[in-house]
Amino acid sequence: MTSERKGMSNGRAVNGFLLDITGVLYNSIYKSDGVAIAKSAEAVDFLYQHSKVKFLSNAKGNSNRNVARRLQRLGINVREEDVITPAPVVAQYCRENKLRPHLFVRDDVLEYFDGIDTSSPNCVVMGEVEEGFSFDRINRAFRILIDMPKPLLITMGNGKFFQRVDGPCIDVGAFAAALKFSTNCEVLNIGKPSRFYFEQGMNALGMKPEEIVMVGDDLMSDVGGAQACGMRGIQVRTGKWRPDFEKMPVTPDLTADCLYDAVKLIADNGFRL
Amino acid sequence: MTSERKGMSNGRAVNGFLLDITGVLYNSIYKSDGVAIAKSAEAVDFLYQHSKVKFLSNAKGNSNRNVARRLQRLGINVREEDVITPAPVVAQYCRENKLRPHLFVRDDVLEYFDGIDTSSPNCVVMGEVEEGFSFDRINRAFRILIDMPKPLLITMGNGKFFQRVDGPCIDVGAFAAALKFSTNCEVLNIGKPSRFYFEQGMNALGMKPEEIVMVGDDLMSDVGGAQACGMRGIQVRTGKWRPDFEKMPVTPDLTADCLYDAVKLIADNGFRL
Repeated sequence: MTSERKGMSNGRAVNGFLLDITGVLYNSIYKSDGVAIAKSAEAVDFLYQHSKVKFLSNAKGNSNRNVARRLQRLGINVREEDVITPAPVVAQYCRENKLRPHLFVRDDVLEYFDGIDTSSPNCVVMGEVEEGFSFDRINRAFRILIDMPKPLLITMGNGKFFQRVDGPCIDVGAFAAALKFSTNCEVLNIGKPSRFYFEQGMNALGMKPEEIVMVGDDLMSDVGGAQACGMRGIQVRTGKWRPDFEKMPVTPDLTADCLYDAVKLIADNGFRL
Repeated sequence: MTSERKGMSNGRAVNGFLLDITGVLYNSIYKSDGVAIAKSAEAVDFLYQHSKVKFLSNAKGNSNRNVARRLQRLGINVREEDVITPAPVVAQYCRENKLRPHLFVRDDVLEYFDGIDTSSPNCVVMGEVEEGFSFDRINRAFRILIDMPKPLLITMGNGKFFQRVDGPCIDVGAFAAALKFSTNCEVLNIGKPSRFYFEQGMNALGMKPEEIVMVGDDLMSDVGGAQACGMRGIQVRTGKWRPDFEKMPVTPDLTADCLYDAVKLIADNGFRL
């Protein structure tokens, strides 16, 4: 790492960190809490002490409270109020735009939609994969969209796949593509890499994009998305990282073996990159 | 109909008919035989007596034997040997091209793949929707494709939706779009509207495309697909037909309220259209 640090000595200030959660702090295991990634707990503690940090995740299956609690059970001391996930952002968007969503989402995030009118839906909100996904459920979403004059699908993230310890899994972006194929719906992604969603993270930090680094395992969504918003993007070689990322058309501002290494490198460089 | 017949008196000879099955002969009901469309049985009997007819369907859930038997139970006397569905055509394609498919298909069509090596798959064959569709099954297909250097998905039809009596249902084309989104796989459709599949129908009739009319309820796949192969395409206002088809960029050679009306019109015109 010495030469990399030397090359960075003229870097720009890093005042805040946005961290992806799954694949950066911990790895996901189906129907369990998953497993912490080595030294991510130390990295989080260090950032809480020495910088500012928020957690910007596309996790769509759990409330922010349950996301934080799971991390805490893994020994990673993330505070609930610092977690950003799509569901409450989508709910707020529905409120502000007077949308009546058909909810194709996990039970655990339904609480965010309390008080929102879901009768005679004028859009579909989708954030369901794995156990709650079924032909009948996607077909219900399809039937609602096909009957709309201007069908609108709001998707919580638009990922190609997510990583579980047992292997990669097809993600909600694929089913958004399926619904678009069959209904020609407009697809609005509220999740990384949309600028609107990254702005939630910038606003939570109260910083300009050029002060912030985003650390993620997804090259296109985390790193490329952050860079498109004027932040710097750091790729970690954990989670869904694959060697062929290096042939893809996004170049991270830094690539590190894990979150801890990235944080240490930047801290050792006087919080510059 | 009188004026239409008059206008057709200088039409070209019609020597053979390709008929779509679902939405033309009968309407589908989930987990039942469905219901015959009025006078389709008479139209089929008439064509067997006075012309040549084959049945070119994208039905992917049943063997040709069971497709024919269901129609016979509905009083529609279609012979098994005149039914063309994708599964046996796909199986033959796999044999000729030494493909080892991962089979994401219904149990009822597995018999066509007897003797084909399915170990260490080098393609995925997909023809499953409704009850056998699950997140785990599409995810297994995804994992096989994502690990291939040149992923190949063979889909049995590429439809946007199919029609059941209870409403439209998202079809296999949507899930092909999902897998393409997540794996960038090549998608080979063996089903209408692919020329390769229409050629199965032309070969079964032993005729040139200009001698044949295709009758279907799907404007793009049946009518547009047939026309692209040099056949004439007839739209019926049954099955998945919707009024907004008339705004779409395919113009049928004839539109009729049902198969019987189309057949009668052509027969009354001396088998010319």
